Amino acid sequence: MTVSFEVWAHARREQVEQALQAAVPASPPCPAVVSEAMRYCLGRGTKRVRPVLVLAAAEAVVRRGGAHADDAALEAARQLAMPAACAIEFIHTYSLVHDDLPSMDNDALRRGKPTLHVVYGEALAILASDGLLAEGFSILAREPDERLQPALALRKLQVLREVGRAVGAAGMLGGQAIDLQCAGRITHPSHPVGTATPEALRDMHLRKTGALIRAAAVTGGVIVGAQPAEIESLERFGEEIGLAFQIVDDILDEIGTSGELGKTAGKDRAEGKPTYPALFGLDESKALARAHVDAAGEALAGAGLPDEHLLGIARWVVDRRY
Amino acid sequence: MTVSFEVWAHARREQVEQALQAAVPASPPCPAVVSEAMRYCLGRGTKRVRPVLVLAAAEAVVRRGGAHADDAALEAARQLAMPAACAIEFIHTYSLVHDDLPSMDNDALRRGKPTLHVVYGEALAILASDGLLAEGFSILAREPDERLQPALALRKLQVLREVGRAVGAAGMLGGQAIDLQCAGRITHPSHPVGTATPEALRDMHLRKTGALIRAAAVTGGVIVGAQPAEIESLERFGEEIGLAFQIVDDILDEIGTSGELGKTAGKDRAEGKPTYPALFGLDESKALARAHVDAAGEALAGAGLPDEHLLGIARWVVDRRY
Repeated sequence: MTVSFEVWAHARREQVEQALQAAVPASPPCPAVVSEAMRYCLGRGTKRVRPVLVLAAAEAVVRRGGAHADDAALEAARQLAMPAACAIEFIHTYSLVHDDLPSMDNDALRRGKPTLHVVYGEALAILASDGLLAEGFSILAREPDERLQPALALRKLQVLREVGRAVGAAGMLGGQAIDLQCAGRITHPSHPVGTATPEALRDMHLRKTGALIRAAAVTGGVIVGAQPAEIESLERFGEEIGLAFQIVDDILDEIGTSGELGKTAGKDRAEGKPTYPALFGLDESKALARAHVDAAGEALAGAGLPDEHLLGIARWVVDRRY
Repeated sequence: MTVSFEVWAHARREQVEQALQAAVPASPPCPAVVSEAMRYCLGRGTKRVRPVLVLAAAEAVVRRGGAHADDAALEAARQLAMPAACAIEFIHTYSLVHDDLPSMDNDALRRGKPTLHVVYGEALAILASDGLLAEGFSILAREPDERLQPALALRKLQVLREVGRAVGAAGMLGGQAIDLQCAGRITHPSHPVGTATPEALRDMHLRKTGALIRAAAVTGGVIVGAQPAEIESLERFGEEIGLAFQIVDDILDEIGTSGELGKTAGKDRAEGKPTYPALFGLDESKALARAHVDAAGEALAGAGLPDEHLLGIARWVVDRRY
């Protein structure tokens, strides 16, 4: 990682942290225990890859083709993109809480702390995380103080559609359903345990992890008025780093410790879940992750968006802890 | 109920039923078991009070002040309002599935059938219903085939905000949290069991049941361009019939049978939950429900929207099965 990327990313994480805290529904009218539970699972000080990616994509469009952009223009782009950044982190957090529930992966450790249902009980864990999902969509629909420009209204609807597609049954939720089906957790007799071919694994990961990361890259561009070719390039970029991200996650689950990861290590293997290392071995998996990062860079170059911060995020994804 | 209202409501339910079935995500790309589970819990042939209310509100605005509106104009209004109608029924259904989960009310019967988690397991019940919530928001953001008018884009964002407010921590989810707190289902030691005063009961019901019914009335108006005074009147109308609806629900839980209700009867009392009959007695509760329906009618009259179908829905709410 270059120093300038580290400095930039640190500043962005600080901005995101403040915006996330401000976006948690205030009590009243929100019951105090719900606000508190939302703050608990949002945590503090995690990498915030997705919201930082939203901001990087917005900046990259402003700097398209190597154009000069002053600090004020970049800050304006980030402010426009911040609702999508917060919404996507809210929705990502909702998905972590749900994945950890006793009826899903039944996990007791997340982001280095006991999971939400361990601390507040399962009922409130479900409610507070549902609240993060609903609030995520609400944030995207919120009108700024000044009268909303029609062009911006259309972009906001496009952002909402992208996020909806990423979350829904054809995206993240569908991916989790395929995962549960592979793990034999769906009881309906007409839907037997699935099999994990490499194609099925890729499809599942494109949905489970990839869809929201892709949406982060796309929505950051859409909200500042990216052109169709740029959006397509951000989409491919997000898809490639999403796949890299999941492969690295699988590798870390295999070789990391719970203390390093902040979540239970070795769980996928213990449960016989399909993972990249299980299918391809560790070395081949690492090579695959690097290949996806390279493809991500090419996707940007093709549309005149070879932005150093976007490329920094791509490297960050594979360089995590191994 | 007048014959004309019955005929009108029957036709609307048919339209809603078709639109709901068409709005379920197709498989592929949605995993087949998820589409199937969504259709299962959406059911068929229930009253569809909320979506029919959305359509009635849209029609009422077109007929404001007793204006003549031909069939084509009314049908156009209904088509504009149908996404909100479907979204709200999706979201209502999501909330029923979640309320019935083992960690919540742990109910085995809903809409006359075994609950979703009984049939498909808890994990898929959570996923498929989360999918209905996410899909609900997606439906609202969807762009029709023709190029979206800027004015319509602004209305769509307003509809999204209204629905988000109704679902979120300050609305439906917050109400369910208060309910669980009263029932002692939240385990965090700094949040003791709540007490149910009449004010707390009203607040809880305004959120749990009222918020989405209010949103149904409001969004039907907003999407066809209702004026601020009309929106305010629809908001009060929705709030009043929402309260009436919940009081009637409480009464039916007390005096109905599970076969009549399609869900477990007598459960609230068995669990010591706060209800209107428990606090006020049956007769006083019935009088209260009627008073809210009267207030709903007054709210419409004040804004020149004394629409026969909206009033029909208000009567329908209190006349159900007692």
